[in-house]
Amino acid sequence: MNSMTPPQLLQSLHWRYATKAFDATKKIPRDVWQALEQALVLTPTSYGLQPYQFLRVEDPALRAALLPHSWSQRQVVDADQLVVFTARTEMTEADVDKLIRRIAEVRQVPAAALETYRGMMLSDIVHGPRGKKALEWATRQAYIALGNLMTCAAVLGVDTCALEGLNPLEYDRILKLEGTGYVTVVACAVGYRAADDKHAGLAKVRYEMTDLIRSV
Amino acid sequence: MNSMTPPQLLQSLHWRYATKAFDATKKIPRDVWQALEQALVLTPTSYGLQPYQFLRVEDPALRAALLPHSWSQRQVVDADQLVVFTARTEMTEADVDKLIRRIAEVRQVPAAALETYRGMMLSDIVHGPRGKKALEWATRQAYIALGNLMTCAAVLGVDTCALEGLNPLEYDRILKLEGTGYVTVVACAVGYRAADDKHAGLAKVRYEMTDLIRSV
Repeated sequence: MNSMTPPQLLQSLHWRYATKAFDATKKIPRDVWQALEQALVLTPTSYGLQPYQFLRVEDPALRAALLPHSWSQRQVVDADQLVVFTARTEMTEADVDKLIRRIAEVRQVPAAALETYRGMMLSDIVHGPRGKKALEWATRQAYIALGNLMTCAAVLGVDTCALEGLNPLEYDRILKLEGTGYVTVVACAVGYRAADDKHAGLAKVRYEMTDLIRSV
Repeated sequence: MNSMTPPQLLQSLHWRYATKAFDATKKIPRDVWQALEQALVLTPTSYGLQPYQFLRVEDPALRAALLPHSWSQRQVVDADQLVVFTARTEMTEADVDKLIRRIAEVRQVPAAALETYRGMMLSDIVHGPRGKKALEWATRQAYIALGNLMTCAAVLGVDTCALEGLNPLEYDRILKLEGTGYVTVVACAVGYRAADDKHAGLAKVRYEMTDLIRSV
């Protein structure tokens, strides 16, 4: 099962760049956007716990309110879509039980058969040492989703720009995240590059492969 | 520029799963592996700083030594490739200057023309508030690479399993990372599923899209 050849993949990855200027008039076709939403949902996570929510910010007023808290990066208002990645602030027994119920439902197995798996999660990410760092652990899972989204968009010919340069507390306030158990960690603009974005033509800067990958 | 259709992408993402049993006899073709290494190198990062190194663990003795520190997950020894993701422990002026030199070299611009960009990075990730959390910031970038790798592998028909269940300190010791300025954050086994891995046939468990994606 392979959908691309290695040269096709590399062509897409070279085509991708952190888009600075989006064409505000160009919309992502419905089937393409739905595939990207599905891709977000299908992101792999630790234990399958999916400790995040993705906010699709459609309201132009909200986008405008976010702009000054995004280092004024125009992608926030110009890109067809803006996805804000939020992460779960803590992991509780209820979070684990919610996943157990979902596994039981999807795979048609009794929840009791998942007791060992439940215990593993509880002793690690809830009550174990990682439980104290649950937000950071959840944030890392959100970053897997971010990497997944940018790559999926690239192979579908859709532009993205990850936005770490934002004020998470202001995002939380504007997006009314207080009390939800989720906080903003990063965002990603998704759409199409403007024809005159001169960043599109710049050579991609990466360290030599031998600096980044070591064989041992 | 698009290399895949939405249904092709979704087919690949549904095909992908956290592979528990790898076929230890199946090797990744050279051109496919080289594309995956290129994909790692092409990962987008904050400011383009690439604050990580990827260790390709080829030595079977090292793999065997890592196994007991990986919750005994057999993927560590059975998968054709094992990539250990390491993150930079701190970000210094030298790291920023290294990137500036690389940009100047690749884009054929004088380093002096990049002074504003240099200042932005220094005041943020070196001397700014994020400088104190540089390792965690670098770890997040490594997770973008992890997400990117798993998706790229999937579209090339290659199996992966992310491995968070490992003892980073023991990995650092075995891989001799002390003093390098990099520490282990996560690993990923890459290869081909065993024909009898019963996990391959299990229904994928995700929350409903409406639970994971909210439009605002």
